[in-house]
Amino acid sequence: MRLVRVGPAGEERPGVLVGDDSYVDVSDRFTDYDGEFFAGGGLSELARTLSDYDRSQPLDGIRIGPPIARPHQILCVGLNYAEHAAESGSTVTTEPVIFTKAPNSMSGPFDPVVSPVGGTKLDYEVELGVVIGVRSSHLRDDASAAAAIAGFVAVNDVSERAFQLEREGQWVKGKSCPTFNPCGPVLATPDEVGDWQDLELWLTVNGEKRQSSSTRFMVHDVIAIVRYLSQFMVLEPGDLINTGTPAGVALGRADGSYLNRGDVIELGITGLGTQRTVVV
Amino acid sequence: MRLVRVGPAGEERPGVLVGDDSYVDVSDRFTDYDGEFFAGGGLSELARTLSDYDRSQPLDGIRIGPPIARPHQILCVGLNYAEHAAESGSTVTTEPVIFTKAPNSMSGPFDPVVSPVGGTKLDYEVELGVVIGVRSSHLRDDASAAAAIAGFVAVNDVSERAFQLEREGQWVKGKSCPTFNPCGPVLATPDEVGDWQDLELWLTVNGEKRQSSSTRFMVHDVIAIVRYLSQFMVLEPGDLINTGTPAGVALGRADGSYLNRGDVIELGITGLGTQRTVVV
Repeated sequence: MRLVRVGPAGEERPGVLVGDDSYVDVSDRFTDYDGEFFAGGGLSELARTLSDYDRSQPLDGIRIGPPIARPHQILCVGLNYAEHAAESGSTVTTEPVIFTKAPNSMSGPFDPVVSPVGGTKLDYEVELGVVIGVRSSHLRDDASAAAAIAGFVAVNDVSERAFQLEREGQWVKGKSCPTFNPCGPVLATPDEVGDWQDLELWLTVNGEKRQSSSTRFMVHDVIAIVRYLSQFMVLEPGDLINTGTPAGVALGRADGSYLNRGDVIELGITGLGTQRTVVV
Repeated sequence: MRLVRVGPAGEERPGVLVGDDSYVDVSDRFTDYDGEFFAGGGLSELARTLSDYDRSQPLDGIRIGPPIARPHQILCVGLNYAEHAAESGSTVTTEPVIFTKAPNSMSGPFDPVVSPVGGTKLDYEVELGVVIGVRSSHLRDDASAAAAIAGFVAVNDVSERAFQLEREGQWVKGKSCPTFNPCGPVLATPDEVGDWQDLELWLTVNGEKRQSSSTRFMVHDVIAIVRYLSQFMVLEPGDLINTGTPAGVALGRADGSYLNRGDVIELGITGLGTQRTVVV
């Protein structure tokens, strides 16, 4: 299944994508794709009851929001592709580097990205996002980590590098502004995605290819990341994990091509759809 | 007012403390002390209606939970007392160092602190906690920052130093285990607290004084912290800010006196009550 949430920001209704441009509204049975939905076996119930709906609606002209409600946490892995670590002036680490973003930084896949007051180095990062489906602590093996995954989303881990790297301390400052986590358009369940370590991911700015890689090249793979995180904290249903970005971010380019107002960012991941956001 | 939440973990009911050992249960009118409560003017309504209640109940034998529901974020300031920065091998920074804790690390002021599997350097940090009352972004002056504060709590920013400092990357790994943020017993409103930059804070382990200082010695004061954070992210009603710990943590002691199972941690802050937690 490919889950979507449609409607005005803050009033999104849950639905399921049918084909490329229509959806089934399931808001009569499901309140939202939130922690309660995932914890209560909502995905299985949705799969069971989906055939009861005999009417789909066109998506045309309707806003698509992020495919999950605001999570308890947005956890992020840093430096998880070797070439990106190198372009950032770092080396690959033996253990995943973890940081967080404010959960209220999340926005929809076609919403504007707001350049923050005082920012000077606005950057983009296409990433595979993992949504947790089961409350998880100290996951003991790969199978239980796989079973804890509700699905996958495309994410842009937008970053203000001056806030992140030049204002002292930890990275959260440059990762948490409103609209800094465009997410979606769909949450695709694992069966829909297939081998999630073999997905192409790409990003363009004004049509120019900036990032192009594959999740094959992750240093720490999805299962390792989920297991690792569960050793340090309790992962809640609906939590989002951004698994790191490949090379090509503005920070790593000799020309320092940071984003400007009016720039159009497009990105996509195999099976997870495409985003188009404009910097304002 | 001094707000409390009483009852089993996850089922706490909101109340207001009367004297030292009884409370008024206000759960008939207020669901919880959460983001919605603060955003909807719950504090004013509570103050208005409190005199309608003519019956208080003894606290004796009842569990006291954290005085606020799980927040959207727990934000923390690092190295915010000069002597603590020095004992941590760091210097004071011109801008606040910010990091986060998982919101589900929060626990009650008398709940056990669980030593995590694999941890070896469990540490304590008494801190003044600030609870946000108003959604805030780019606060322009000190008065609006003060108006955005719902009240104050005592917090123990429990830390596993091996996870925080020896496992690569950012600090969140060593700050987010379950029970790592004992909070309370009360949320005291600003009028109740008076000058929040002149509160004594102390912590003992098995009766031995380990930390003893005053909020006078903060490097970045409460108002500066709230204004600063609002430049980088949107502060939500109910968010908690841990404002940093004074000197005396185990990390900074030559004898490396980390916590062991059975250790009793007691702490207090002027006007905010005392905590007593046991390491298990």
